[in-house]
Amino acid sequence: MTSGWTVDDWLAAYRSGSTPSELLLPLLDKLSLSDVTWISLVDRAHLEQQIKTLEDRQYATNDEKLLPLFGVPFAVKDNIDVAHLSTTAACPAFAYTPTTNAFVVEQLTLGGAIVIGKTNLDQFATGLVGVRSPYGAVPNAFNVEYISGGSSSGSASVVARGIVPFSLGTDTAGSGRVPAGLNNIVGLKPTKGALSGTGLVKACRTLDCISVFATTVADASAVFEICRGFDAADGFSRSKPASVVSSDLPARPCFGIPAVAEFYGDEQSANAYEDALKQIEASGAVLKRIDFTLFDQVAALLYNGPWVAERYAAIEKFAVSNAEDMHPVVREIIFQAKKYSAADTFNAFYQLADLKRMADQIMADVNGLLVPTAPCHFKITQVEADPIRLNSQLGKYTNFVNLLDWCALAVPMGFRADGLPFGLTLIAPAWHDEQLAQYGRRLQEQLALTRGATGRPFLR
Amino acid sequence: MTSGWTVDDWLAAYRSGSTPSELLLPLLDKLSLSDVTWISLVDRAHLEQQIKTLEDRQYATNDEKLLPLFGVPFAVKDNIDVAHLSTTAACPAFAYTPTTNAFVVEQLTLGGAIVIGKTNLDQFATGLVGVRSPYGAVPNAFNVEYISGGSSSGSASVVARGIVPFSLGTDTAGSGRVPAGLNNIVGLKPTKGALSGTGLVKACRTLDCISVFATTVADASAVFEICRGFDAADGFSRSKPASVVSSDLPARPCFGIPAVAEFYGDEQSANAYEDALKQIEASGAVLKRIDFTLFDQVAALLYNGPWVAERYAAIEKFAVSNAEDMHPVVREIIFQAKKYSAADTFNAFYQLADLKRMADQIMADVNGLLVPTAPCHFKITQVEADPIRLNSQLGKYTNFVNLLDWCALAVPMGFRADGLPFGLTLIAPAWHDEQLAQYGRRLQEQLALTRGATGRPFLR
Repeated sequence: MTSGWTVDDWLAAYRSGSTPSELLLPLLDKLSLSDVTWISLVDRAHLEQQIKTLEDRQYATNDEKLLPLFGVPFAVKDNIDVAHLSTTAACPAFAYTPTTNAFVVEQLTLGGAIVIGKTNLDQFATGLVGVRSPYGAVPNAFNVEYISGGSSSGSASVVARGIVPFSLGTDTAGSGRVPAGLNNIVGLKPTKGALSGTGLVKACRTLDCISVFATTVADASAVFEICRGFDAADGFSRSKPASVVSSDLPARPCFGIPAVAEFYGDEQSANAYEDALKQIEASGAVLKRIDFTLFDQVAALLYNGPWVAERYAAIEKFAVSNAEDMHPVVREIIFQAKKYSAADTFNAFYQLADLKRMADQIMADVNGLLVPTAPCHFKITQVEADPIRLNSQLGKYTNFVNLLDWCALAVPMGFRADGLPFGLTLIAPAWHDEQLAQYGRRLQEQLALTRGATGRPFLR
Repeated sequence: MTSGWTVDDWLAAYRSGSTPSELLLPLLDKLSLSDVTWISLVDRAHLEQQIKTLEDRQYATNDEKLLPLFGVPFAVKDNIDVAHLSTTAACPAFAYTPTTNAFVVEQLTLGGAIVIGKTNLDQFATGLVGVRSPYGAVPNAFNVEYISGGSSSGSASVVARGIVPFSLGTDTAGSGRVPAGLNNIVGLKPTKGALSGTGLVKACRTLDCISVFATTVADASAVFEICRGFDAADGFSRSKPASVVSSDLPARPCFGIPAVAEFYGDEQSANAYEDALKQIEASGAVLKRIDFTLFDQVAALLYNGPWVAERYAAIEKFAVSNAEDMHPVVREIIFQAKKYSAADTFNAFYQLADLKRMADQIMADVNGLLVPTAPCHFKITQVEADPIRLNSQLGKYTNFVNLLDWCALAVPMGFRADGLPFGLTLIAPAWHDEQLAQYGRRLQEQLALTRGATGRPFLR
């Protein structure tokens, strides 16, 4: 009954007299761990406890504005802590049970939202495919032979299928965007540090961003605004500088697109891209072709450079003692950390600083970049046969963004001839999240696509 | 005749009709490489060429404001490029002759200043002592048995002795402050990135700051304002964010001082510190004792952590092929880089981010910190006998500043019973350079000490 609801649909139902118990208990009853998207679900007692706490607070405050997510269910990627649920990072041997919520989960809970469960992911958030998990490969919401994308595979899937209106993912090299693109949903990859990392199993702590999935930009933005906030306990949390002026985008924004777009031979995506660009031009935007060589150089630093050592640093003790408990592909990647010295690391920082200087000059000439969210779709069997090369192809248009300290918003753009979705990602400098959301909302209103894989319409 | 002149004294002489040739050629004639403070001096032809260029420009512009340092001589630490003079970094085997000026040298030259020579330093700017150089140990300007401090030893000495009114040093862990404190001069350690590092032999590129020595805060500030500026060619150059409000310090500023100040048994410095604090209170400032444990933890990261690998990264090819050409103490320090991995580096960044968060909270409660610039004086023979331990003692109050992205200003505070100088350093958050200078100017007017070792009075 609640399937495919947006945040507004949920709030409207409560305003019409439904109670959280009436809506949430039946929702939970339908869910099962036999669905590979879930690693854990709250039990009935835990859900009832959350509902009671919420209703007590509603009674105490009686101010709707204080509970903007009253009774709205959400899912959390299983590398983000939810008190009293196990955090596995998709590695059972690594699991621990936190006693407190991650900062962002706490903000959402204080806003009235209700945790339903923890979702599957590429182990230790290392991957863009959604198949590197002992809990199983998460299938695409449109065709089970295809990958969901990752690493936030489960969080994307449960939103695309309309089980919850929003979910939390994470994004280091594209994990909050690629699965959005592959599943016809919105992926909001905020400015680094805008969402606190307290209670997150770090992948690359200097690059990690908690991200938001929803079927509409409006929902993703609203959730982002509720869970953002400076967290003094996280050394990488940041406040928006007063010097960043949040001016509206011009009526005819200019977006930089790749001079030559790469689809690795996937002609259906190439065709969908051409169609998508026509929609962008119809929106009034101007497209400017840009040489993307520089961004490829940044991406190369990430994949063939010392940042992989952050993944090792994050779980070093565990990795040393439990190497055999790790997914073999993830282990192979993370143990590459040992190749890199401190001097290599600093040299890479210097290279990045110089590349960022040039990248910012490119960005200064446009209102943002516009890229395919993912260049292609792969079958699960394809990725299992060639796990590392195909994975990096998926990150072609995502992996330079966090290194350059930029924010991004993945938006659905329609469907290919084979029925699989295609999406574009808008990219802007740090702290321009709201500008991206403005344009994203306009675009969704223009396209009026069905939301996710729910079959439900986009309503203005 | 020009000995001990300030920048204003030089400008006044030109306004009274003196010509650059009349003042600068005799100055150069008196200088000799037998003075251990110099590594190289311009030759007469080079000086005459500079003078001719300057006079041509004066004729062309006829606008005094465009040449605010018209004919003012200065010295440059020999790890900063001056076109056509050798850059040695105090390592003859490393020497090269650049064809262009470092960015900051170019700014000063465009402002009318005249390079006189390149100064001695602790090799590769690795040291706070001024004795780690094959060109010889630079003596203190007040007592030749004592060290000058370093690594900007020569640049401090030539200003203290009144040869030039200002000079450029560098500061990574205190190299622009310690020798100022030990030689009764001003050391301005700007906000990181305010002065471009283009043309600097890097020590720790993420921490390096070019610094300014002068006998007055007014001179140091004026020089800083002329050589600052954004340099797109340096990935670490920064502009002052519009969000930083440069409000004046309150009439009664509150400065944090160490709860327990450490002088390593040097009672004369301990006594001078007590006298200095009385002067600070007389200036109207309020002192607040602060637990400095946190700053010691930051310093420990610098000395026993991966940042040393930046020193290795900066000269890796040379260090590998020419290890035997390096000063043995410097070589020992720089080769420690090999101990540190990429994972160690990221772990240290995380620790630093957490420590900075706490340090900023301490800083938020005061208008700045006030510390002894150097806790003690050492004889050259003492440092030669115990080169590493005594060196780190000298950095007690300087080495946490650049890691925390703060700026600093070392100011003379008077003399100890033995006639050696004692100084204090003001420390403030990034981009508060001008606030520090304001207070420093007030303090110098109040104290009216003789300038450097020139015996010349401070004139209001």
